[in-house]
Amino acid sequence: MLRSFIACNRIGSKNPTLKLIACYSTSGKQRQGKIYESASDAVADVKDGSKILFGGFGICGIPEKMIDALKQKGVKNLTAVSNNGGVDDFGLGLLIKQKQMSKVIFSYVGENKELVRQYLAGELAIELTPQGTLAEKIRAGGAGIPAFFTPTGYATLVQQGGAPIKYDKNGKVAVASAPKPVQSFNGRNYVREESIFADFALVKAKKADPLGNLVFNKSARNFNSPMCRAAKITIAEVEEIVPVGALSPDEIHVPGIYVKRIFKGTNYSKRIERLRITEPKENGKPAAEPKPAQLLRERIARRVALEFRDGMYANLGIGIPVLSSNYIPEGMNVMLQSENGILGLGPFPTNDQVDHDLINAGKETVTVIPGAAYFGSDESFAMIRGGHVDLTVLGAMEVSATGDLANWMIPGKLVKGMGGAMDLVAAPGAKVIITMEHNARDGSPKILESCSLPLTGKEVIDLIISEKAVFQVEKGVGLTLLEVAEGYTVDDIVACTGAKFTVSPNVKQMGQISI
Amino acid sequence: MLRSFIACNRIGSKNPTLKLIACYSTSGKQRQGKIYESASDAVADVKDGSKILFGGFGICGIPEKMIDALKQKGVKNLTAVSNNGGVDDFGLGLLIKQKQMSKVIFSYVGENKELVRQYLAGELAIELTPQGTLAEKIRAGGAGIPAFFTPTGYATLVQQGGAPIKYDKNGKVAVASAPKPVQSFNGRNYVREESIFADFALVKAKKADPLGNLVFNKSARNFNSPMCRAAKITIAEVEEIVPVGALSPDEIHVPGIYVKRIFKGTNYSKRIERLRITEPKENGKPAAEPKPAQLLRERIARRVALEFRDGMYANLGIGIPVLSSNYIPEGMNVMLQSENGILGLGPFPTNDQVDHDLINAGKETVTVIPGAAYFGSDESFAMIRGGHVDLTVLGAMEVSATGDLANWMIPGKLVKGMGGAMDLVAAPGAKVIITMEHNARDGSPKILESCSLPLTGKEVIDLIISEKAVFQVEKGVGLTLLEVAEGYTVDDIVACTGAKFTVSPNVKQMGQISI
Repeated sequence: MLRSFIACNRIGSKNPTLKLIACYSTSGKQRQGKIYESASDAVADVKDGSKILFGGFGICGIPEKMIDALKQKGVKNLTAVSNNGGVDDFGLGLLIKQKQMSKVIFSYVGENKELVRQYLAGELAIELTPQGTLAEKIRAGGAGIPAFFTPTGYATLVQQGGAPIKYDKNGKVAVASAPKPVQSFNGRNYVREESIFADFALVKAKKADPLGNLVFNKSARNFNSPMCRAAKITIAEVEEIVPVGALSPDEIHVPGIYVKRIFKGTNYSKRIERLRITEPKENGKPAAEPKPAQLLRERIARRVALEFRDGMYANLGIGIPVLSSNYIPEGMNVMLQSENGILGLGPFPTNDQVDHDLINAGKETVTVIPGAAYFGSDESFAMIRGGHVDLTVLGAMEVSATGDLANWMIPGKLVKGMGGAMDLVAAPGAKVIITMEHNARDGSPKILESCSLPLTGKEVIDLIISEKAVFQVEKGVGLTLLEVAEGYTVDDIVACTGAKFTVSPNVKQMGQISI
Repeated sequence: MLRSFIACNRIGSKNPTLKLIACYSTSGKQRQGKIYESASDAVADVKDGSKILFGGFGICGIPEKMIDALKQKGVKNLTAVSNNGGVDDFGLGLLIKQKQMSKVIFSYVGENKELVRQYLAGELAIELTPQGTLAEKIRAGGAGIPAFFTPTGYATLVQQGGAPIKYDKNGKVAVASAPKPVQSFNGRNYVREESIFADFALVKAKKADPLGNLVFNKSARNFNSPMCRAAKITIAEVEEIVPVGALSPDEIHVPGIYVKRIFKGTNYSKRIERLRITEPKENGKPAAEPKPAQLLRERIARRVALEFRDGMYANLGIGIPVLSSNYIPEGMNVMLQSENGILGLGPFPTNDQVDHDLINAGKETVTVIPGAAYFGSDESFAMIRGGHVDLTVLGAMEVSATGDLANWMIPGKLVKGMGGAMDLVAAPGAKVIITMEHNARDGSPKILESCSLPLTGKEVIDLIISEKAVFQVEKGVGLTLLEVAEGYTVDDIVACTGAKFTVSPNVKQMGQISI
């Protein structure tokens, strides 16, 4: 009791009586070594204004018990570093709803409407950071590296500065990002990024031993693993505490040296953000007539599939790119990478295969194929940035004749964040294919002389595949029309394209992988 | 046969007949996917002048079959990147003996006399690189990071330039290292280091599956793990090839995306560089009278042991520092880190516990305690550089009154390399204790106003423990004499010390942990 009272006072209460009661209801103390009784004990010294790393990707592998405890505790003015902002009613969304955060450093905010509302209303600052840069900044922070150079974000707002961090009440940009230094290595330009180190890292693992050694489950490793290393105090909530020696020294994902506190959480929600299921085939029943939009998507996906090669490693974005994986020819081995930490993605699960700890970068439930591997987000983007992934397929809002890509924001209107897209397109060596509808809904062209929207990457595209045509993009050459879809002429393509292009002497009908 | 011939021609032979015969004597082809028949098949396209990463630490976890194959092949003018140069008659020593290398990038060459002879005779260039910087340069190379900043080596030859890379035939420095850029972050100076990426990475793993997924054994992970990621062609020799799906996606240390070729090696030598055994206690037999040198070492070690705290993580250098671990009080939990990739070092093994894949940074056989973890060299130095290790204890040749340390080279005479010492002392936050004999063999002082030898680190020492005294070193204050050993007076210490110091008002007799 006395010990609880002292612990409460240290936190700095304005109302000791009330706090005493609040404290009384929990044990308020460390049980033994690194093991704490509860989430509220473990986060007892988190203060207003703390900078906190929150593990997880989407709502997979988030420290949900500690988020609840911080909500109860009511600490305010937090700076949160996380990949996403949760959803409106779960994960970090709970703290955002209560306005406990003043600044967030995220790569993607597309799933949280209240977060975006607060941002556009000038109530919250958002530093949107490319996912791979975010992972590397955190990895560097833990590794004693104050700064590093990355190809990601060069010649975009991230590097040039001017990205809106905070709006005022009238919707004008009150705080914009500063430009970042650029340096050339081996003839290529790189951006200097500084590391992130926080007061606390709150992570979720599957198992811990009393020394703080951690093991994660499947794709729930994600940002949890690098974050453990990059804070003064790392606290892990786990589903199971096993005895010292129960974890093999070869299987430990995070050594206990990085982890100051652990506690066992109970009744995990196992909530799933986007349940996707492989439906059993309905034999005998004729398939429903496909809609025009579906046919269009399939045509693009079947053209993408012609780019697959045996033994290839590929990262496929959400939507049409992922759809193309349905057309990988039988017997061809293409390993699919998911930037949240999977190599070897399989199909969507059947009902009994669903695992909330196994999702893709689109937060959809997935399976893995034999020979798959899981890893943390730092490793995932080392893999991407290092040029080890052969092929990247992504969607676009706009593309330019020189291979620029815009797909992450419409200033003042649409704020989703770049996620991993800037890293994927900046990786040297990887082929970048853009899939998109040839024209916007109002018929205006999306292939332009230069993009009007903020760039995702400059001179990064190798191939553009729309439902109408296929263009090659070459540095110093520009666009070359390679293929025209059935039902269109070269003149049609000229008419609906907003940039000049060369017509290949070998121009042919748009290819489709046979099914 | 035809296939073999074509493969040979592609390598670019001047003497096709001879090459054809050479090819004929091996199978010369890939068996299936990434799996190769033999070491010579796997390295068939290594050319004169190739830049090659060689995995391993000392001779633990080295790609011995591929080293043999390169010896047979006789390729010359290689640039080798490795932590060590093997020993004279094993490991990279075999290629050095045959003069197949023109340049090596190593952190430590202390175990290979022929290597040092070639270096001092101007036959070979050596770029000595701090072990953690080497690991990070390789990690960065694989991760698409062209350069990064590290505290390691600031204000030493590594940063200032002038380290001898190649001597001429008269023993004069023909090529010296260039200075490296320095930049300040948060009031501290850092060195900019550029990444390493090679033509080939040759590594040894315990297990692989046909997709190239790798699992390492114990401390044999070391440099193998980061090196896999940092070459155009990574080739792994393994003890066992298991079926696809036999490795759990959570246990894979290196995903197959990084590995282009694998083959199964046989008859591994399991050679041990420094066999250390825990001798069974000889009951009833009186212990031999300890020699004076031993008493001196024990006195220092017993003083070091007073610095241990429960729950501490410590890295103890070879010699007296390691000896201090014998005096960790019973019931106190101190986790010992070994920079080759172990957290949780245990005592030397009994005869039946000896494992050639389990050594410490001094290349001695060791055991681990329950709760230990293994990791790669990149992770190990991230841990060190990031300040997660609380205490570092190292030996010294010279120390200065301002806390400078010199312990890695005597120009033109003694070349061993800095190993991990520069990283260990540069880590912010870690307490650095120097243990050493107070005076050199000729009686001259080793504690000086300023060091005459090239520095390992500038202003890095916190405490100096000799057999005669204990000094505290504080920035802006200098040396303070805290303790004097039994049998010495303050005047004795003044007489045998080459730097001015303050005597603490509380100066006392040198402490010794009770045994």
